[in-house]
Amino acid sequence: MIYFNCDYMTGAHPEVLKKLYDTNMEHTPGYGMDVYTQEAKALILKSCGLERGEVYFLEGGTQANKIVIDRLLTRNDGVVCCESGHINVHESGAIEADGHKVIALPEKDGKLEAKDLEKYVADFYRDQTHIHMVRPAMVYISHPTEFGTLYTLDELTRIADVCHRYEMPLYVDGARLAYGLVAENTDISLQSLSTIADVFYIGGTKCGALFGEAVVTRRPELFMRFDSLMKLHGALLAKGRVLSVQFIALFTDNLYLRIGHHADRLANKLKEGFRSKGYKLFMDSPTNQQFIIIPNEKIAELRSVVGFDFWGPEGETESIVRFVTDWSTTEEAVDRLLKLI
Amino acid sequence: MIYFNCDYMTGAHPEVLKKLYDTNMEHTPGYGMDVYTQEAKALILKSCGLERGEVYFLEGGTQANKIVIDRLLTRNDGVVCCESGHINVHESGAIEADGHKVIALPEKDGKLEAKDLEKYVADFYRDQTHIHMVRPAMVYISHPTEFGTLYTLDELTRIADVCHRYEMPLYVDGARLAYGLVAENTDISLQSLSTIADVFYIGGTKCGALFGEAVVTRRPELFMRFDSLMKLHGALLAKGRVLSVQFIALFTDNLYLRIGHHADRLANKLKEGFRSKGYKLFMDSPTNQQFIIIPNEKIAELRSVVGFDFWGPEGETESIVRFVTDWSTTEEAVDRLLKLI
Amino acid sequence: MIYFNCDYMTGAHPEVLKKLYDTNMEHTPGYGMDVYTQEAKALILKSCGLERGEVYFLEGGTQANKIVIDRLLTRNDGVVCCESGHINVHESGAIEADGHKVIALPEKDGKLEAKDLEKYVADFYRDQTHIHMVRPAMVYISHPTEFGTLYTLDELTRIADVCHRYEMPLYVDGARLAYGLVAENTDISLQSLSTIADVFYIGGTKCGALFGEAVVTRRPELFMRFDSLMKLHGALLAKGRVLSVQFIALFTDNLYLRIGHHADRLANKLKEGFRSKGYKLFMDSPTNQQFIIIPNEKIAELRSVVGFDFWGPEGETESIVRFVTDWSTTEEAVDRLLKLI
Amino acid sequence: MIYFNCDYMTGAHPEVLKKLYDTNMEHTPGYGMDVYTQEAKALILKSCGLERGEVYFLEGGTQANKIVIDRLLTRNDGVVCCESGHINVHESGAIEADGHKVIALPEKDGKLEAKDLEKYVADFYRDQTHIHMVRPAMVYISHPTEFGTLYTLDELTRIADVCHRYEMPLYVDGARLAYGLVAENTDISLQSLSTIADVFYIGGTKCGALFGEAVVTRRPELFMRFDSLMKLHGALLAKGRVLSVQFIALFTDNLYLRIGHHADRLANKLKEGFRSKGYKLFMDSPTNQQFIIIPNEKIAELRSVVGFDFWGPEGETESIVRFVTDWSTTEEAVDRLLKLI
Repeated sequence: MIYFNCDYMTGAHPEVLKKLYDTNMEHTPGYGMDVYTQEAKALILKSCGLERGEVYFLEGGTQANKIVIDRLLTRNDGVVCCESGHINVHESGAIEADGHKVIALPEKDGKLEAKDLEKYVADFYRDQTHIHMVRPAMVYISHPTEFGTLYTLDELTRIADVCHRYEMPLYVDGARLAYGLVAENTDISLQSLSTIADVFYIGGTKCGALFGEAVVTRRPELFMRFDSLMKLHGALLAKGRVLSVQFIALFTDNLYLRIGHHADRLANKLKEGFRSKGYKLFMDSPTNQQFIIIPNEKIAELRSVVGFDFWGPEGETESIVRFVTDWSTTEEAVDRLLKLI
Repeated sequence: MIYFNCDYMTGAHPEVLKKLYDTNMEHTPGYGMDVYTQEAKALILKSCGLERGEVYFLEGGTQANKIVIDRLLTRNDGVVCCESGHINVHESGAIEADGHKVIALPEKDGKLEAKDLEKYVADFYRDQTHIHMVRPAMVYISHPTEFGTLYTLDELTRIADVCHRYEMPLYVDGARLAYGLVAENTDISLQSLSTIADVFYIGGTKCGALFGEAVVTRRPELFMRFDSLMKLHGALLAKGRVLSVQFIALFTDNLYLRIGHHADRLANKLKEGFRSKGYKLFMDSPTNQQFIIIPNEKIAELRSVVGFDFWGPEGETESIVRFVTDWSTTEEAVDRLLKLI
Repeated sequence: MIYFNCDYMTGAHPEVLKKLYDTNMEHTPGYGMDVYTQEAKALILKSCGLERGEVYFLEGGTQANKIVIDRLLTRNDGVVCCESGHINVHESGAIEADGHKVIALPEKDGKLEAKDLEKYVADFYRDQTHIHMVRPAMVYISHPTEFGTLYTLDELTRIADVCHRYEMPLYVDGARLAYGLVAENTDISLQSLSTIADVFYIGGTKCGALFGEAVVTRRPELFMRFDSLMKLHGALLAKGRVLSVQFIALFTDNLYLRIGHHADRLANKLKEGFRSKGYKLFMDSPTNQQFIIIPNEKIAELRSVVGFDFWGPEGETESIVRFVTDWSTTEEAVDRLLKLI
Repeated sequence: MIYFNCDYMTGAHPEVLKKLYDTNMEHTPGYGMDVYTQEAKALILKSCGLERGEVYFLEGGTQANKIVIDRLLTRNDGVVCCESGHINVHESGAIEADGHKVIALPEKDGKLEAKDLEKYVADFYRDQTHIHMVRPAMVYISHPTEFGTLYTLDELTRIADVCHRYEMPLYVDGARLAYGLVAENTDISLQSLSTIADVFYIGGTKCGALFGEAVVTRRPELFMRFDSLMKLHGALLAKGRVLSVQFIALFTDNLYLRIGHHADRLANKLKEGFRSKGYKLFMDSPTNQQFIIIPNEKIAELRSVVGFDFWGPEGETESIVRFVTDWSTTEEAVDRLLKLI
């Protein structure tokens, strides 16, 4: 059996696990007050090119989204995202559970467009009855998106412009950021992201860690008593360094980007392999998720030897299927898949 | 330097870490749908002597408390605990954040007493204005308590009787359960706890795991769509097996109880050492937390070589200090401490 | 100046105010424990044809929606409505503030369609990842809708069928129910609504009361400790009879329906007046709200003598305008308006 | 039967009802955008001696408390009050329902003391683990208190000093403010209250209105988009003027203070009547609530002709009973009661 179901099927990248092992017997204070957490924060801020800023370590993507949004919004404010936004669809109402409306706008290739955002917010403030409505008070996007696509620097900048004009912090969900940063032709780097977004997170769980995400902000003043808010959400890990040492490993010797490169290269090989055999793409993704349109008969045939996710029907006889690569995907697995199609 | 600050200063017990290492390269489905999670659940239910029941794995104690309580209470209901209850004092308002009032009652030796509970609840239902008040709808206790003390089987049974009479599920926070189960003279076993409490959790974080707690219930019908509620709270780990394989290690070859024994034995040695030199105990704990009254001068002297927690002043010239042992505490460390006093 | 802006510009219908006046000096217990509240409940249940059921009095529509929905949903559940649903657009996030997602589906003439509902819910349960999603757990519709349109008995029954098949209570917002019950050609009566909906409210505020709505349910078992939940939401009026005596007036001598008839007749006259002069309707409403398409020049001209609401642009040179009638609208006002166009 | 159960048994003071009647047929915009609301706000600010400030009209006391507190606190903050505080005991968890912990401190004669407040807050900030605790972020007191007692200007000022030192807004619940302002020997006026409290409310429901409270603040900058928050809480009345015209009546010709005088005078007569016959007071209240200790036999005897509230047992053979006066209490009723004892 070969597996392309998702990027969280195996444990941690060996260099990450080794770091956990190497530090295991040391005594450090709890709740992130340890030296490793300080070291990881410094490493990350440096990689981001931020002289001033703050980093917080959380356990998972939904948790990071939920708590960041809970901090940035006051009670009668909402967060804007696009229809397929993870917070809108696949977080079991985590944002609403904290009292905040998710305002979903149309999208293109999984991306929010600056013009749609501008129109929505301008209309809101023009509406005389807006005291009866939820104020759009921050913006959420993912990079890469749910479909593996990427914003261009220009697209991102235009969204940020609208955000700043209407005083809405821009938050970028980077669950799969490693795969975006090293994608072919992308012009968004960790540094540019760090200065454009008000806050974003560097995904660990789906990029080689056992678990964990690093929330980064250039505006610490927005995150007053954030550790206390983390505690309130049940998200302040007692052995806080368990998260930070993983990020030290990921940000040592470029491991984070090496993981991205490895997965993107194999995903691209997989995509081109399908394409060369006449398959159509549902979405042309430059990152580690590939959405291919495959005849239903072929899907049934592949299922016994290949793991992948069913994404939805495409007409009567075909379906969209998702293949995902990560640090643990081997060249042999891709070759074997391509032989089967 | 020797450390007695808390039971979460080091990483995981080597047998736990080894299990993570050994399973690292395997591919399994996410979100707890994997075989290890099934195996861990079966192991735990068997240890608890439960033929029917359910187990859920969560990342930390506050998270477990928060989500269990959120499931068991409807909106205008509250949870009863004693004044020093962790949910009342040290969870940054995690329970209230979900809309539930924490109703704190008096305590003795850190323990809620059945008679105080009975009186409060009976008074509530007798009060003609109780529609203006929060209904006491479940009960939270810790075993061991915040002060390391233990309920007796009789005390626990009497609390459970009140709970059942007023249809309030009884929930036991077992953050340090390992140290309670093997304490000298205790008559509460994992099996008796499993049948008396409606739900409880077996603490991993403070008992040898990197992180993680196992919520156990003999009443799965109270936990409908609990995985979805975990997701809503940002607590459904993508690589779910990272939690369960640790519990497999803890419940293999009695590791969980061995860890408890080791820590309790050293804690007891430490306590008796202090006692034999004339120190008074603030609380006579049979488990891994010891609360000793020490002259302030002596405290200042110890600080440079021993790590411990300051608990509060005791008169003008003395203070209460907490010493904690765990799996990584060595006999040498205890001996060294006892030489210093 | 003549006013058609909305149905809450004047005070109460004189018969309602008289009842407040007549009872003013009496002493009764607070919080709805008085005889008037019992009398009003009995009157309403009888009008609804319900032998068994419960009635609760609340202060306004958003409050009623918010509290009913909060009672019927558990934490990780959502409420389904159509895009223009009041709870989705004009309640400032009142539903989300209590932790519940509003799931908005497409609509036709302001109405939710049974087939769209069926498809959404069936897809949800078919989706293997539905633990990551908000469960559609109840359905909200308005009758009349935001556009003054009405469901037919057949449409309502088909929606209820889907609701019951998937165990979703059906809740009907009757903010303007008076105008719906007596509309020409409607086949939905108070009695049929009472047996089809699990819960609905009879609007007072927009139908002749100073303020107040009566929530009616044939399933009191779903509303355990609802008065306590009302208190929690700040909605339990101390002088509870202030609400119920108004409803006694409204349900005496058919006042509620008389108010509906008066307003609908004048609204229809207004509509036909516009139509006969060649104006197009944005929506063909049989109730007290009329949406007419009017040239922008004409709108500007009318503004100085007529009050109405601007609803939105319709092309470059025309706009949609809303005219509303109520118990205090006079025949003269309508005649005067029709002369101006 | 004569009634002393509470101050919300009758309707509105005739002058209040007359104002509702006189304005009933006028057309005004909804949601508080009308001229009466503007007039009432100006009248109240003037009475308070505030040149700059804001006034909001709400429907009841719990609602006012809930929404004001929800505005002033951010998520992981709590509100401090004394044990008998209405928000701590009799609001069905309304504050916690919005996610905020109520921190209850000891009291004396129903009053919070500045020294207890100072100690609690100072300890909080001194505690190294305070990120795990709820921050005391605002203070709630009632004037008069639940027991009818009054703060002195000196007591109030000392509490305010602590509040300002720790940046905690001071909020005063004035459900029965009329009775406090005119009490014998009080040195707190509406003007002094207005400059000392950051926000308070002038109670209408218990002081002669049908219903309604006026929230007053000298710091409007703390109340951004408060009308939208009111809407979110289901508390923005469509016919907003129904509240404000009542306050116009209450603040015309000193009606509010006249109501206070009338009730206090009769309450004082009642108290002295009891005292002169040898009854003991449970609490020496200068306002409209009187708490008298009465033999149980006598209570049973009175019950058939006098309405009052049972407050609690006082030893074996006596109980505490509450008698309340208001605008509708007559001299005859008091005389009749005094003859019966």
